[in-house]
Amino acid sequence: MLATDEYIARELPRWRAELAELLRFRSISTDPAFASDVQRTAEWLVDRLERAGLAATCAETGGHPVVLGRHTVGRDAPTLLVYAHYDVQPPEPLDEWQTPPFEPTVRGDRLYARGAADDKAQVILQLAAAEAALATDSLPINLILLFEGEEEIGSPNLVPFVRMHARDLKSDHVLIADSMMFAPGRPSLIFGMRGLAYFEIEVRIGAHDLHSGQYCGAVPNPAHALATIIDSLHDANGRVAIEGFYDDVELPGPGILEEWRELNFDERAFQMTAGDAALLGEAGFSTPERLWIRPALDVNGIASGYAGPGAKTVLPARALAKLSCRLVPKQDFARVQQLLGAHIERVTPPGVHVRVECLQGSQPWRADPSAPLFSAAARALESVFGVPPVRVAHGGTLPIAPEFADLLQAPVMVMGFALPGANMHAPNEWFPLDHLEKGIKTMTRLYTMLAQ
Amino acid sequence: MLATDEYIARELPRWRAELAELLRFRSISTDPAFASDVQRTAEWLVDRLERAGLAATCAETGGHPVVLGRHTVGRDAPTLLVYAHYDVQPPEPLDEWQTPPFEPTVRGDRLYARGAADDKAQVILQLAAAEAALATDSLPINLILLFEGEEEIGSPNLVPFVRMHARDLKSDHVLIADSMMFAPGRPSLIFGMRGLAYFEIEVRIGAHDLHSGQYCGAVPNPAHALATIIDSLHDANGRVAIEGFYDDVELPGPGILEEWRELNFDERAFQMTAGDAALLGEAGFSTPERLWIRPALDVNGIASGYAGPGAKTVLPARALAKLSCRLVPKQDFARVQQLLGAHIERVTPPGVHVRVECLQGSQPWRADPSAPLFSAAARALESVFGVPPVRVAHGGTLPIAPEFADLLQAPVMVMGFALPGANMHAPNEWFPLDHLEKGIKTMTRLYTMLAQ
Repeated sequence: MLATDEYIARELPRWRAELAELLRFRSISTDPAFASDVQRTAEWLVDRLERAGLAATCAETGGHPVVLGRHTVGRDAPTLLVYAHYDVQPPEPLDEWQTPPFEPTVRGDRLYARGAADDKAQVILQLAAAEAALATDSLPINLILLFEGEEEIGSPNLVPFVRMHARDLKSDHVLIADSMMFAPGRPSLIFGMRGLAYFEIEVRIGAHDLHSGQYCGAVPNPAHALATIIDSLHDANGRVAIEGFYDDVELPGPGILEEWRELNFDERAFQMTAGDAALLGEAGFSTPERLWIRPALDVNGIASGYAGPGAKTVLPARALAKLSCRLVPKQDFARVQQLLGAHIERVTPPGVHVRVECLQGSQPWRADPSAPLFSAAARALESVFGVPPVRVAHGGTLPIAPEFADLLQAPVMVMGFALPGANMHAPNEWFPLDHLEKGIKTMTRLYTMLAQ
Repeated sequence: MLATDEYIARELPRWRAELAELLRFRSISTDPAFASDVQRTAEWLVDRLERAGLAATCAETGGHPVVLGRHTVGRDAPTLLVYAHYDVQPPEPLDEWQTPPFEPTVRGDRLYARGAADDKAQVILQLAAAEAALATDSLPINLILLFEGEEEIGSPNLVPFVRMHARDLKSDHVLIADSMMFAPGRPSLIFGMRGLAYFEIEVRIGAHDLHSGQYCGAVPNPAHALATIIDSLHDANGRVAIEGFYDDVELPGPGILEEWRELNFDERAFQMTAGDAALLGEAGFSTPERLWIRPALDVNGIASGYAGPGAKTVLPARALAKLSCRLVPKQDFARVQQLLGAHIERVTPPGVHVRVECLQGSQPWRADPSAPLFSAAARALESVFGVPPVRVAHGGTLPIAPEFADLLQAPVMVMGFALPGANMHAPNEWFPLDHLEKGIKTMTRLYTMLAQ
């Protein structure tokens, strides 16, 4: 083990440089304009996997490619599949970044860039851990590294891919290398994440925009109608007001809920990460409960008419909203889509046309936190961070978590090394510089522990 | 008079070319990026006025310049001041234009371009009428042409300008050469227009955008709060729900309302100009009443988070709305601003910060439709169009109308030659080609009638 740590210490500067290189790729999966950037990122990863000593392939899918790296010991050794993703969110709004999103910049002990936390640092640390273990003859298990290029658009092609290659990808443990620790110095293991149902709503009144003076007061306004619809989605207690929305919600066992009461969730620190936003939500639940085990609905964007500098007296012809529900077991995104559609039909004011489209759907996921992968990872984390990890859930969505559990019939765990307040999906995203090394070390220890 | 008409027939092709030239200037007054385009437009107009035989000046203001052209007969002759504006609205959304907004294009009997109807064709026809009358020795009155460059941003500098030069601009009649006819073949004289109070509302929850998975359900959403505010602004009868909003509303005399019942306002034609939008508004009023004598409130734009292609799971930090009230006598925009501010304070949900800013305010205007200017113009229009004009009001706003009446103590009338459905402030704005000549002829006849 000492030799591996020495190798890690020696190669760390190169891996940092490689991380910076990876962060410069504009691998924005949602925007077709960046498709070739995503492709080049995948090819770069294949090259790095090969140099690390793994058998690497760039597997085409219906969309952006899946990158695979593989080290095989033999049938008797256990197999660990590690998942991460190399695509990123769009960087907008650009003017709120202190330094350009695709020019990685170190300030203090943080590395800033789009994708730094979500998920490129974690891609590099998995790659580096495999390289370090191989180079020092310390990789006693079968390892499959699977890097996806479509996580930020709901993984439309990964499930068919995993299904088609289920035999090749057969594993005893699945680690999803994404997400973050509970707090600085407090690593965590995640056993549950929320699902997602993402919608686009368009309200239209006519064929084209109008001069507001000539029509104001005599035709419906699509932004009014959209506001009526959005306002109807919550009641005064912060609950989602869509009929039937909570029908299938299942809480975790009381043991977990009691454990969480001892967590000392730091509301003030959380609030600071939220840009000092107020902490408000569904009445009767704590902040971690609202995030981890309660469903919620948020508007992700709205647009209509003119919102640039100055005044434009236009009466817009259409208004658009993007909104999404975070779902918990055992809600089903297809059923939520039906419920939302029926609700909108009921509340839409007269004289406007509404289109509701589901852009993404991912089921919620919850694992058994007593599986062997969880205990091995707990020991690995404790040996690096000096404290045992806490068992938590997470408010975000990893579409592939429930799918891996289902398709590979293996326990799934999520372990990430970003920190709260990392500004994932927002301007000034960052990753703690020292967690690159800590993550690499945790992984090399985990390989050994899984072989025991 | 025959000589003047002959001159007009001969020079019409050149004036058409000059109109196309004027339409190519991007004189977008609201966007500082186009300030030099606005300046160049003013200089071009000074040159054309001089060539037409008028004494021309480009008068600097605190913003975009005022262009003045003047012909003086003597103290005994009456003075007509004609106002028009050479600035235009922004052309967005660009992808809805069939041909580029600043490349004037003839299709059928219409000329398409940003500013074609509002107000550049009317600028050219006033210029051409003065030229034709002067060239044929048929301008028996004092004439002042005043072309503004800030109409589309609420004329912030024109009132100080007119006040400062009130003695120089002293007139017996004021004609505002903007707006449109009642219907094709039915000219109209406008004696009332609505005022405007234009607001920007910003809702903010924190310092920066958030990852919706990590915060959804635990912090307020600014787009929800904005929707709550917007939805609260109307009741179920389509009335503005701001307390006190209707307190000062004064209807015109019953004579006018009766006249309008005979107008045969063509609802279907109006609906077609509105891109086939439904005709809906305040309960208990007809469409022309809703437009001409009832106040109204419309959202002109909203923006928050991500509204581009695909899905982005962002929880936005702020949401913005532009909204405006059209006001009727004797509402006051400053009082409406107070009422709106108090309303928003009352309905804003907890946990968000709201800023309300008034970007523009213009008082409503109503004139006496029996003034001599109205009867002279009625005769001029009838001699060109073959039918007498109808007396109507208009839903739009010309900030300078009430100001001219007040500062110059002269009767004000609005007469325009665009047609309903001209797409003012919207994509594919157009002006009827033959109205250039008809407008020029109407003006040359009006000069003569005012001298009688």
